[in-house]
Amino acid sequence: MSEERILLAHGGGGQLMAELVARVFVSRLGTGEPPGDDSARIAASEGDARPTGLVFTTDAFVVDPIFFPGGDIGRLAVCGTVNDLAAAGARPLSLSAGFILEEGLLISDLERVVDSMAAAAREAGVKVVCGDTKVVPRGKADQVYITTSGVGEVPEGVAVSGGNAQPGDVVLVSGPVGDHGLAVLSRREGLEFASEIVSDCAPLAGLAASLLKAVSSVHVLRDPTRGGLATALNEIALQSGVEIEVEEAAVPVRPSVLAACELLGLDPLYAANEGKLVVIAPAGEAEAALHALRSHPLGGEAAVIGRVRGAGPGRVLLKTSMGSHRILDRHVGEEMPRIC
Amino acid sequence: MSEERILLAHGGGGQLMAELVARVFVSRLGTGEPPGDDSARIAASEGDARPTGLVFTTDAFVVDPIFFPGGDIGRLAVCGTVNDLAAAGARPLSLSAGFILEEGLLISDLERVVDSMAAAAREAGVKVVCGDTKVVPRGKADQVYITTSGVGEVPEGVAVSGGNAQPGDVVLVSGPVGDHGLAVLSRREGLEFASEIVSDCAPLAGLAASLLKAVSSVHVLRDPTRGGLATALNEIALQSGVEIEVEEAAVPVRPSVLAACELLGLDPLYAANEGKLVVIAPAGEAEAALHALRSHPLGGEAAVIGRVRGAGPGRVLLKTSMGSHRILDRHVGEEMPRIC
Repeated sequence: MSEERILLAHGGGGQLMAELVARVFVSRLGTGEPPGDDSARIAASEGDARPTGLVFTTDAFVVDPIFFPGGDIGRLAVCGTVNDLAAAGARPLSLSAGFILEEGLLISDLERVVDSMAAAAREAGVKVVCGDTKVVPRGKADQVYITTSGVGEVPEGVAVSGGNAQPGDVVLVSGPVGDHGLAVLSRREGLEFASEIVSDCAPLAGLAASLLKAVSSVHVLRDPTRGGLATALNEIALQSGVEIEVEEAAVPVRPSVLAACELLGLDPLYAANEGKLVVIAPAGEAEAALHALRSHPLGGEAAVIGRVRGAGPGRVLLKTSMGSHRILDRHVGEEMPRIC
Repeated sequence: MSEERILLAHGGGGQLMAELVARVFVSRLGTGEPPGDDSARIAASEGDARPTGLVFTTDAFVVDPIFFPGGDIGRLAVCGTVNDLAAAGARPLSLSAGFILEEGLLISDLERVVDSMAAAAREAGVKVVCGDTKVVPRGKADQVYITTSGVGEVPEGVAVSGGNAQPGDVVLVSGPVGDHGLAVLSRREGLEFASEIVSDCAPLAGLAASLLKAVSSVHVLRDPTRGGLATALNEIALQSGVEIEVEEAAVPVRPSVLAACELLGLDPLYAANEGKLVVIAPAGEAEAALHALRSHPLGGEAAVIGRVRGAGPGRVLLKTSMGSHRILDRHVGEEMPRIC
């Protein structure tokens, strides 16, 4: 017991990581309200019992390589945190950034990364207001790691959470899945495809705001990052205590991503996204939600991909093109290390 | 130019780091309002022009070793961020924590670190409300790095900033300096002294609140971490455009810290603290401030150590025990790597 050690698989977003988080972090720190969401409400002022409308979130970024088609660790660090706020239904107010730099890092590379953060922050309409820098000796980090945190404001009337999925709801995704995961992996492995795979890394605050303006009754928003669409849906199913059914043929996947997945033996449903939203809303709002997503530049290829079947043990069923069903499990460990 | 690389010295809190931050971060991200403080105000709600009373701060922790006399990286990560909030005059509301774990880390060590975070958070009266975990391959980190961010609330009427020091003000410190730096360094170097040096690592929110309750006209609060008292005073002198005079004999330093400094060729005025406050207040409030600090368990050895002499080029003068003056410069680089 005392000799148990951290494995790469503990960072994969799968079952092992969920167990580590529950055992080491949630139990000790009481972190996470509601448990399972990526953001938490900020405690109210002293003497003020009302919950604030402010949410708080953080993410560490260790992607390898730090530059990849469609982005870099800087863009990723801003988008990842903005998107956690967006998935809480919040407008981003302020970001922070903590840098861990490896001795020997090219300052020109750091400048490129920071320029990219600034550009992504401008796109998201938010500022990086505070930061910190540490340097560790050569071989004690890998070029640069960035941890961003964000504070956002949830508009009145918005109440999205992974625990709010209701039987009868529809499930949508804002565009093709797996782009980020395969873009990073292809670059890392030195693979070249006929058409380059480009990360979808983008700030989703605007897309989420447009959607919530059109459909205020949205139940769940989630950005399916590490572990991909399958993991995000499993988390939601578990949080809400429902069964979710996904139609395989309805999930948009680019042909280039599909080809790369086949070559590498990966499933695009488990590949990371950094610019996609999963949306769960009442069935009666399906058309309105689809229209709102498609009307935004980042949601042009949005699709209805499934539905919430009913109260259940928290599992996700995939209805294959052949019409059969199989369980879309949560992976145990790490399929794609250091993807974000 | 393009071949310039990050040096360990860029992380030391000295001149090189200040230049890197100005050149790479502040210029590109517009980070820091007011520039120089460790916390920033959170932007107001849409359509609300008033500044919020909320401040936001972040710090990355890479201390080596992760366990040291008086604390560990977990306690440090909570106290460091709570203390940045305290130095902004703020009551801590919520913390976040991002973990970067090295493959192979003992889970029992991680549990010890997280238990220690929980205990420090309880002491500070704050909760870690959200977190994130990444795992990197063996040799791409050093056991565990933690980045904490914090949101705090500044009570009405409190307006402390490194830019507020006024000619005629007195300078106080809440206790002996250098404990943290020498505790970590001694443990790292395997040095043993007759009396063990113990880190002062502690959350200062309560001490700061007691002080501000007694003396609401405090001009500056600062926690003198990396680079120590000398660096903190240099930053304040520069921000406020004043000259600060410190009486060498008035600065409290434990005999064990002094002895270790002599052995290692270090100056305790540049050694890191993680549980001390520098206070600058109107001269007429010197007694009240001293009394408020000394009445708190964490300020029992507080002392008046100097004064703000007048508008100036932003420098710090040390009046030695012999009565002569010398300039207490900002160091260029890194005296004590990975001290926090």
